[in-house]
Amino acid sequence: MLKDRKIKTICLFLILIVALALAGCTRNVNKPLTTIAWDIPDGEMDPKVWGKYFPHQYSSYQKNMEVIAEDKTNYGSSERKSHIAAYPWKQNIWAGYGFSKDYNEERGHVWSVIDLTSTQRVNAKTPGSCLTCKTPNVPVLYEQLGDDYYATPLAEHLKDPNSMIPISCANCHDNETMELKIVQPPLRDALKKLGQDPDKLTHQEKRTLVCAQCHVEYYFDKENKSRVTFPWTEGFEPANIEEYYADLEFVDWEHAKTGQGMLKTQHPEYETFVDSAHYQAGVSCADCHMPYTKAGNEKYSSHWWTSPLKTAEQSCGTCHKDGSDARRDRVQYIQDKVADQLHKAGKISEELILSIEAAQKIEGIEQLKVDEAKVLSRRAVWYWDFVAAENSMGFHNPEKALHSLADSIDYARQGLALVKEAAAWAGGSFTIQPAKTEDANPTREITEKPNI
Amino acid sequence: MLKDRKIKTICLFLILIVALALAGCTRNVNKPLTTIAWDIPDGEMDPKVWGKYFPHQYSSYQKNMEVIAEDKTNYGSSERKSHIAAYPWKQNIWAGYGFSKDYNEERGHVWSVIDLTSTQRVNAKTPGSCLTCKTPNVPVLYEQLGDDYYATPLAEHLKDPNSMIPISCANCHDNETMELKIVQPPLRDALKKLGQDPDKLTHQEKRTLVCAQCHVEYYFDKENKSRVTFPWTEGFEPANIEEYYADLEFVDWEHAKTGQGMLKTQHPEYETFVDSAHYQAGVSCADCHMPYTKAGNEKYSSHWWTSPLKTAEQSCGTCHKDGSDARRDRVQYIQDKVADQLHKAGKISEELILSIEAAQKIEGIEQLKVDEAKVLSRRAVWYWDFVAAENSMGFHNPEKALHSLADSIDYARQGLALVKEAAAWAGGSFTIQPAKTEDANPTREITEKPNI
Repeated sequence: MLKDRKIKTICLFLILIVALALAGCTRNVNKPLTTIAWDIPDGEMDPKVWGKYFPHQYSSYQKNMEVIAEDKTNYGSSERKSHIAAYPWKQNIWAGYGFSKDYNEERGHVWSVIDLTSTQRVNAKTPGSCLTCKTPNVPVLYEQLGDDYYATPLAEHLKDPNSMIPISCANCHDNETMELKIVQPPLRDALKKLGQDPDKLTHQEKRTLVCAQCHVEYYFDKENKSRVTFPWTEGFEPANIEEYYADLEFVDWEHAKTGQGMLKTQHPEYETFVDSAHYQAGVSCADCHMPYTKAGNEKYSSHWWTSPLKTAEQSCGTCHKDGSDARRDRVQYIQDKVADQLHKAGKISEELILSIEAAQKIEGIEQLKVDEAKVLSRRAVWYWDFVAAENSMGFHNPEKALHSLADSIDYARQGLALVKEAAAWAGGSFTIQPAKTEDANPTREITEKPNI
Repeated sequence: MLKDRKIKTICLFLILIVALALAGCTRNVNKPLTTIAWDIPDGEMDPKVWGKYFPHQYSSYQKNMEVIAEDKTNYGSSERKSHIAAYPWKQNIWAGYGFSKDYNEERGHVWSVIDLTSTQRVNAKTPGSCLTCKTPNVPVLYEQLGDDYYATPLAEHLKDPNSMIPISCANCHDNETMELKIVQPPLRDALKKLGQDPDKLTHQEKRTLVCAQCHVEYYFDKENKSRVTFPWTEGFEPANIEEYYADLEFVDWEHAKTGQGMLKTQHPEYETFVDSAHYQAGVSCADCHMPYTKAGNEKYSSHWWTSPLKTAEQSCGTCHKDGSDARRDRVQYIQDKVADQLHKAGKISEELILSIEAAQKIEGIEQLKVDEAKVLSRRAVWYWDFVAAENSMGFHNPEKALHSLADSIDYARQGLALVKEAAAWAGGSFTIQPAKTEDANPTREITEKPNI
């Protein structure tokens, strides 16, 4: 009997080991350990109400309010630092456009409405289109107003207190099922144009596409009530989108120094990421930027949207086991290479713009050459800004970023050759004066805080 | 008793499962399943002799003889295709230098001596330095002749029948221990200059460095008996090596069209790879280019040095589980981006060279500007060739490759602006005539075959 019991004990022990070994072989499945019941009314936008049922998600969301002066990244930050003061030549690149006067590093998502209403880039004429992406109230306003939502003045929309609620739960989630949902009209339109149904996406697709509601290049379709439109029908390369705009003869603004109709790139994160190594490997935005985190026994997605370098263990460590230093070094290597060409390309574009401005004052200069150089300045700035405006210093897709910057340099230098040669033929020389930091508008202080 | 036996059976079964589970968790250790005894005399270089003891390695080595017209890669090949006929503008880039006349895609390693002796780039004056890397006889000759090995005419070395043995076993292996070994004097010198002992490297380091015996940028130190030297003391960036050469006032050849002292990059595979993502992850050249392969029960390293795309399952599949199509797409994506800027950069360099040639004939042209443009042509060609001469179409380190190409374009366009402006001030215009395929020397047929 004693022997029998011993054998049984051994058996039980072995069964336990087998069970543990098998459990170890199975990947953690993302199931909540507790079942949450919630009751969020239709149309409820206040994150505080949603947060009552999802305290961990909510408390990580509140971290978006933090402004961290010394964070763990070398590029980007959550501080409202002036791009213009840091890189004064940007004033000349965007001369005649709001960005040359007031352009700051973005703060966390919860500051979206405050930072929109405080920028000197908006005024009484600003269309409602500008509110798109800033608040979960947009889909509601769109449902009420239809396409008139876009042309209605921003100031009008801001009278609705719900418009003051910054990006939050309802921007991505269904209040009943908590499923991810594409709520912003422009992405719904864009997907439909590409033959995709925004309501029939896989969960993993949505873990990227809810971000692509806003983290994209867009324009206001002036022929169509300033409708926010994504220029995606030709493809996602900078060359494809440039072609799209060329076909439309679209201009964002007329350059104050050259008179050229220019393009301003918005944050093309999705367009950059969509053919990257990470995307191709099945990784979504949320996998890195909203890593699974544990609070006691509960596992939840972080809702602190920030650089994955700050949560590298959870964000990168799931796949990249090579230790935090190696990972950080790699990111740094890529970003340093991109930053080097980015700032070089930007300064050459400034030089071209100032040279065109100076050269076209020379009597008898061949206008055809100057005009050609002006078109090249539009192209140079487009290919530069595709990387400059993108929030990752090229990391989202290093090859696409560096390819784009080589194009920018190529176009800017071609333009410079043209104006210098034309000036010489006309017997005129010119000098240029690059912008200085002192010329930059000071960043206005903002004391207002989001009510989240 | 029956119950007892049943319990014992269950126990044994469970123990077996545990054992198997544990075995499955342990990575395969690279131990040969059979113990091989070999007896290879000191100084034996004939791969047929080594091959008797290592039949699998040997038969894979013999595959280096194959010339595959339609292989699985879009860039590179094992065919002796003319670079000059494919990209006629290369004739102008290298005008006055042997590469402009005869420059073919390299065949497999076993062709090393035949392809050396057949190229029109060698003649009666060619120094022995050119034999370095082509045969396992080099360390032997060096032991006999000391530094005079380099200055001795190549023709002299070729009288020794052992010099006709192409790259083979003894280039990387110790005949007694079969351990990897750095045998080529230039790498031994270079490592010592960097404070490393070539005889005290880890196995994994050697799995890269035996390749770096040859797959590197080098120059003939003319002050020092044409000693083959690696320009590594400033670093491995193209800018570091350019600086090294500038300090030396080194020139590979004087350009026939411009008179500028130029640099010819050799195959800087090691310099490109050494700070890449793969290298940083601990991957060696051999991990991808000499994957572990099975022949029946025996596991061996493939000695067929070729594109890992041809052995993607073994080469990439160990780490990248995402399927062959995804892997191929990724490589293609990177290489297409690099190839696009590479060919663009090359053609701009040609344009610069031809423009300098034409412009300097203009009477009264400002020589200072032309001289500046000439220096820029040296730089543009260097940064272009750092990628052009490297065998991976940028894949070994996409960021470094694309960064270098952006620099090349920048310098070439700067040079063009200078000559065009200077020509205009002198009141002279010029036209250029890019090279055509018809101008390329035909690739000579070679019927000789290696005796391996």
